[in-house]
Amino acid sequence: MASTKPFLLYTGPTPNGYKVTIYLEELKTLYPNVEYDTEKIDISTNRQKEPWFIALNPNGRIPVLVDRSRDNFVVFETAAILLYLAQHYDKQKKFTFDAETEPNDYSEMLQWIFWAHGGVGPMQGQANHFNRYAPEDIPYAKKRYIDETKRLYGVLEIRLADRDWLAGPGRGKLSIADFNVVAWVRVWKFSGVDSIDEFPNVKAWLERISERPAVQAGVTPPQ
Amino acid sequence: MASTKPFLLYTGPTPNGYKVTIYLEELKTLYPNVEYDTEKIDISTNRQKEPWFIALNPNGRIPVLVDRSRDNFVVFETAAILLYLAQHYDKQKKFTFDAETEPNDYSEMLQWIFWAHGGVGPMQGQANHFNRYAPEDIPYAKKRYIDETKRLYGVLEIRLADRDWLAGPGRGKLSIADFNVVAWVRVWKFSGVDSIDEFPNVKAWLERISERPAVQAGVTPPQ
Repeated sequence: MASTKPFLLYTGPTPNGYKVTIYLEELKTLYPNVEYDTEKIDISTNRQKEPWFIALNPNGRIPVLVDRSRDNFVVFETAAILLYLAQHYDKQKKFTFDAETEPNDYSEMLQWIFWAHGGVGPMQGQANHFNRYAPEDIPYAKKRYIDETKRLYGVLEIRLADRDWLAGPGRGKLSIADFNVVAWVRVWKFSGVDSIDEFPNVKAWLERISERPAVQAGVTPPQ
Repeated sequence: MASTKPFLLYTGPTPNGYKVTIYLEELKTLYPNVEYDTEKIDISTNRQKEPWFIALNPNGRIPVLVDRSRDNFVVFETAAILLYLAQHYDKQKKFTFDAETEPNDYSEMLQWIFWAHGGVGPMQGQANHFNRYAPEDIPYAKKRYIDETKRLYGVLEIRLADRDWLAGPGRGKLSIADFNVVAWVRVWKFSGVDSIDEFPNVKAWLERISERPAVQAGVTPPQ
């Protein structure tokens, strides 16, 4: 029998995959209708480059969300998935802001989402490549991307100097801006960053968010 | 006398700077109130790392938009600037989509914006680095980022196979999704891509958009 859960997520045990499952798990705690199936895509066999997958996402990357409850609408790119879920399924706006009534908070949330999407993700990803996967040992590139990852953590450190969360008034409100970047920051050691002790605000933020049961459920490898 | 133009844009003659000036020039043709001053930030002297600039954008990068007409609200990250301008100043939604009444087109626009923001920009930027600026000659890295840039152009090629513009129904509607990526694609030669003839749909799209007077005005170096 076909599943009746509203969402199907093609994903894998990667930071980009976990961004989405963290948010889905948080939504599940608030909204009983948010249920999802996952289908694990084994990227080591290049299943994400097969024609059926390219038809879903021409970029050939996980995660991809299929919304069965909205005529199988397809969403790719992690941050676009978070914003899609926020618009359609976080009606109380618990983890987002209202573009019309909170336009500045909404813009700041987007600014931090784009900052991570164009910075932390790609640069920490290159750090992973040169420190773990590249067939050549290239000290210049190893150092370049570790340095850039640490520079970006330093930007987070500035932002978190007087606040608990990246966006929102006062000390901020936990939002998809945080989910979007924590999935990368939490694997700093894997990427070759020697320590995050020099970023105490980032470290405290990481501990604060990692305590959440939904975040812990969200980073469980998909079956 | 202080300028009374509503926007001040800190920018430079780079793809990320031009994304924003292209859209501002397009908006100017439709809305007489869209006027802006530019202040050129000479990144070769690291002015973007000075404390006054870090206070505007802790990431220390151009462009940064200051909206004098909305209490000097500050927006950084190119794509966040485009979405901010779209929300507040493109009231006819000529170059964007309405999230409420056109939710799927809006999501597809966001998907292509994030795809470019996390892919074309950072990867073509790395191609520039290793092919033009790096102090060491590293063939592996040169090839890696040229190959990735071309792979991403191949994704655009798929998307543009049956449409004129990246988002929108039918053959699409010119939108900020196009402005966001064309600023990078137009400098393919500078980045070390040998030819774009293997991407005929991309080439035709690039010619189509480059014919627009506002796009030409938008890629004029700031004073």
